[in-house]
Amino acid sequence: MTEAAWIAAAEAAADVAGAVIRPFFRAAQGLDAALKEDRSPVTIADRTAEQAMRAVLGERCPNHGILGEEFGLQQPEARLRWVLDPIDGTRAFITGRPVFGTLIALLDGDRPILGVIDQPITGERWIGVEGQPTRFRGPFGGRPGCRPCPELGRAELSCTSPEMVAAALAPGWQRLASQVRRVSWGGDCYAYGLLALGQIDIIAEGDMKVWDWAALVPVIEGAGGRITDWSGQPLRPGGPGQALAVGDAVLLPQAVSLLAA
Amino acid sequence: MTEAAWIAAAEAAADVAGAVIRPFFRAAQGLDAALKEDRSPVTIADRTAEQAMRAVLGERCPNHGILGEEFGLQQPEARLRWVLDPIDGTRAFITGRPVFGTLIALLDGDRPILGVIDQPITGERWIGVEGQPTRFRGPFGGRPGCRPCPELGRAELSCTSPEMVAAALAPGWQRLASQVRRVSWGGDCYAYGLLALGQIDIIAEGDMKVWDWAALVPVIEGAGGRITDWSGQPLRPGGPGQALAVGDAVLLPQAVSLLAA
Repeated sequence: MTEAAWIAAAEAAADVAGAVIRPFFRAAQGLDAALKEDRSPVTIADRTAEQAMRAVLGERCPNHGILGEEFGLQQPEARLRWVLDPIDGTRAFITGRPVFGTLIALLDGDRPILGVIDQPITGERWIGVEGQPTRFRGPFGGRPGCRPCPELGRAELSCTSPEMVAAALAPGWQRLASQVRRVSWGGDCYAYGLLALGQIDIIAEGDMKVWDWAALVPVIEGAGGRITDWSGQPLRPGGPGQALAVGDAVLLPQAVSLLAA
Repeated sequence: MTEAAWIAAAEAAADVAGAVIRPFFRAAQGLDAALKEDRSPVTIADRTAEQAMRAVLGERCPNHGILGEEFGLQQPEARLRWVLDPIDGTRAFITGRPVFGTLIALLDGDRPILGVIDQPITGERWIGVEGQPTRFRGPFGGRPGCRPCPELGRAELSCTSPEMVAAALAPGWQRLASQVRRVSWGGDCYAYGLLALGQIDIIAEGDMKVWDWAALVPVIEGAGGRITDWSGQPLRPGGPGQALAVGDAVLLPQAVSLLAA
């Protein structure tokens, strides 16, 4: 298979996930539906979208492994492995905010070589491929490319929720937050997409599983940014589950030093 | 003037504000532009949109007062007064998130009788008129109408940022947050719009000026919800600057009791 075929497969998977997810967005006004976790609209959308993506990727890339949160790992022996998160940003989805995303990554061993961030409600899509400039399309404008930000004091910091930087992570995060220009909240994967559009300068979050971060790596690095764990090491499956993304690599050592205990 | 003419004037004002604001959204990738507060894109968009709305409303409703954050109060003697916030959610706008909003309210004395929440990027618009069902239109679905939520333990709570419930407000807010089902962050006026679509059950925030809350009142009450200050009293100009919105009025006394010191 060629790289173009991988991209086409990832886009086809994003398309079917979006088609599954859209009818569930803002559809259930009944609170009871939301309360039954195993049959809630978000759970049904999540599971069905993962199955639909597995079907598309399994047909197009029969020799690749597939890992998703809901249905585990298929073909564990494959070196090339898809990693899927149909709805990254469950809280955003549940509350009707169009800033969650579908994440699709292709890993070569432990290294993400392709990543798609797709927002199926707004129609925005980021495509990152190792060694290539990140592509972006959508109806609201924005051009791929991180912006220069030579000083932390000028940086826009973003985080999905205070719970993601709670407990042991809180002191480091507070040190970082105290040095930046401004903090904004919410966003999940969408915020990483905005960093790749030069709208946000730094994101630091904990509690990240491989399906939460794998797709972000090629998108951010292809836009000129960096994404590591909080100690500045490459993200890897089974790592500490923290993500630190910067649009300007100059910020990375300062952020690492503030985040460290 | 008839009520229909007021609604038409408010919609015309929202239309021109959106036309002013859209070209600035995600347009400036240069950090320098964002740093010069008085000439930043958000400041230019904000001030120009307020002037454009004043022009439209002044022409259509020459006897009404107009209050906006940037340009003060015109015709202070008028009993009917427009209250404008061109960009509610500056941080969302600055970081490229399409969840800020333009707020337009008409007050009769201290009482908001008409409110518009407009999201000029997504094309979503909420229109609330005292005594009438709230109207909503937009491309992403959703129907106006708050949802029943008989218990706090089942409620989705939302707040724009921890800073809005800091300092003296923090203990009460934490008590409330500890009793709900889940908390989500971000949103500004957009979250109140989602409450009016039955997607969120409760919002509690401080640091609210009259232009931040006036438009929300008719939208939320017309959707069957309630919005008060943290002691359950009607919002009024010069009040404590807190907002407590609930989709189900049953939650109001419990929330007030938890928020109180």
